Amino acid sequence: MDKEEQDKLKKQAAIKAAELVKPGMKLGVGTGSTVAFLIAELGRRKKEEGLNLAAVVTTSSRSKKQMESYGFHVDELKAVDQLDLTIDGADRLAANFDGIKGGGGALTMEKNVAVNSRKIIWIVDESKVVDRLSGFALPVEVLPISCEQNFKLFQAEGLQPQWRLAGNERFVTHYGNYIIDLNIDPIPVPSGLADYLDHTVGVVEHGLFLGMCDEAIIAHSNGEIEDRKK
Amino acid sequence: MDKEEQDKLKKQAAIKAAELVKPGMKLGVGTGSTVAFLIAELGRRKKEEGLNLAAVVTTSSRSKKQMESYGFHVDELKAVDQLDLTIDGADRLAANFDGIKGGGGALTMEKNVAVNSRKIIWIVDESKVVDRLSGFALPVEVLPISCEQNFKLFQAEGLQPQWRLAGNERFVTHYGNYIIDLNIDPIPVPSGLADYLDHTVGVVEHGLFLGMCDEAIIAHSNGEIEDRKK
Repeated sequence: MDKEEQDKLKKQAAIKAAELVKPGMKLGVGTGSTVAFLIAELGRRKKEEGLNLAAVVTTSSRSKKQMESYGFHVDELKAVDQLDLTIDGADRLAANFDGIKGGGGALTMEKNVAVNSRKIIWIVDESKVVDRLSGFALPVEVLPISCEQNFKLFQAEGLQPQWRLAGNERFVTHYGNYIIDLNIDPIPVPSGLADYLDHTVGVVEHGLFLGMCDEAIIAHSNGEIEDRKK
Repeated sequence: MDKEEQDKLKKQAAIKAAELVKPGMKLGVGTGSTVAFLIAELGRRKKEEGLNLAAVVTTSSRSKKQMESYGFHVDELKAVDQLDLTIDGADRLAANFDGIKGGGGALTMEKNVAVNSRKIIWIVDESKVVDRLSGFALPVEVLPISCEQNFKLFQAEGLQPQWRLAGNERFVTHYGNYIIDLNIDPIPVPSGLADYLDHTVGVVEHGLFLGMCDEAIIAHSNGEIEDRKK
């Protein structure tokens, strides 16, 4: 599929997802190329239908800027009690709706927005949809203080860690931490690994989003836009 | 007991703890008034006996400066593979050697140093020693992004949260986060609470140090210095 066709599909999926955004909602908005189409559609509805949202929170400054360019006011998450709906992308979506996120390095922000949302919708293309979580390294955000020990620990546990890089340097997160990508494929028991990582001192957050997503808008390569509910 | 007597006791406990520091060790050094006496004793031994340590890591810039003033080189934790011994204070020590730390707000750094130490010794005075963990609010370090939601969640769970303040402002940790003190007294099932906090998105670390301490040097008000092993 060429980029033009791909963009057409992404746009269709984004418009489908945007239909689930109702006036007066407190909305969480993720990041990524498909979400950019979602924001454009929300902007169109604001202009043409006067779409009004009670609150908007974004998971990146890029999405914040784009929402603001359409006249939406963007709040900080802590200023909002709870979001009604968050629409975001995902790096992997399993059949049981578990997912991996954090390919862009913003997993901590994304997870904090996610757990404070009543409903979560992910927009993904077919290539992200798997039976069980696989095919994507699991990002883990670690504090610099004992990051080398965490790396060795993951190595000893057979989790095949790899430093996330930005050029020749280590990638630095929004919070001043590093990311270690775990190259386990497939992930045998995601809930067990999540539990282990939650308990590991030095780990700020990880990219396993288990039991969080409620609905997925899936863009299939044959042009079908599937609305899959848990 | 007046301050002079108290300082004498602290100094005696610190000297007792310092006896457990052997030449060539990789040593973790905590923070606090008793630890300051420990560092002074290590300094004396360096000068008089040529005490040499393979590596030193501290949990605060205050202890770092004091160690350096005696000619010790202080490393970052990530540069050291594993510490042989860490000596630190604690806010509470239970009969089963579980503890609460973080009264000074450096719990994240302290826990990262602790889990990377083969052996942990705490120096405490009698007032910190309890049967079961009680009498001290449990510090929890939270990311600013969803700190208000964490606070409300803790409130809803009956954990009686309170913001740690510095003057009229919220206390800010070394990592740019906030501290919520949980006023639960006593803590009914520490391991259950630790598990809950480990899994709570937005929580960076908490002050429950369970199963970590191996030995405690306890300064009793009657002048006795007790060396209690797990």
